[in-house]
Amino acid sequence: MSNDPDLVALGQTIRQLRKAQELTQEELAFRSGLHVNYIGGIERGERNVGVKALFSLARGLDVQPSELFSSVTE
Amino acid sequence: MSNDPDLVALGQTIRQLRKAQELTQEELAFRSGLHVNYIGGIERGERNVGVKALFSLARGLDVQPSELFSSVTE
Repeated sequence: MSNDPDLVALGQTIRQLRKAQELTQEELAFRSGLHVNYIGGIERGERNVGVKALFSLARGLDVQPSELFSSVTE
Repeated sequence: MSNDPDLVALGQTIRQLRKAQELTQEELAFRSGLHVNYIGGIERGERNVGVKALFSLARGLDVQPSELFSSVTE
């Protein structure tokens, strides 16, 4: 578990992008080749996700990787 | 080792941002709290770096995390 605010912000952005396309977690899992439980953990900000998985998510969401970080500011 | 083109593009962007600020890998390591060898591996595209380390790098480079992905397109 993690309450890292950056991870939470990243996960919320991914969830928003997914819902904006009316995709379920299962559908995004299929499109990105990741396990549905892993996607749930990412969306909740519990996973220090590696960039390879992020690139897969970006492809599954049909967005640029940089867009996943639009709400994360340092 | 990895030749993943997305990881290579990410590493090249990080190297460019570091050099634009005339920072050595050692200086960036100090500023971001990461090991210098790890930064070398990231810049060469050999590391499936986690987002927490990316957030640390963004802070060390004084850029937004999204900027690290400016050259990675899916």
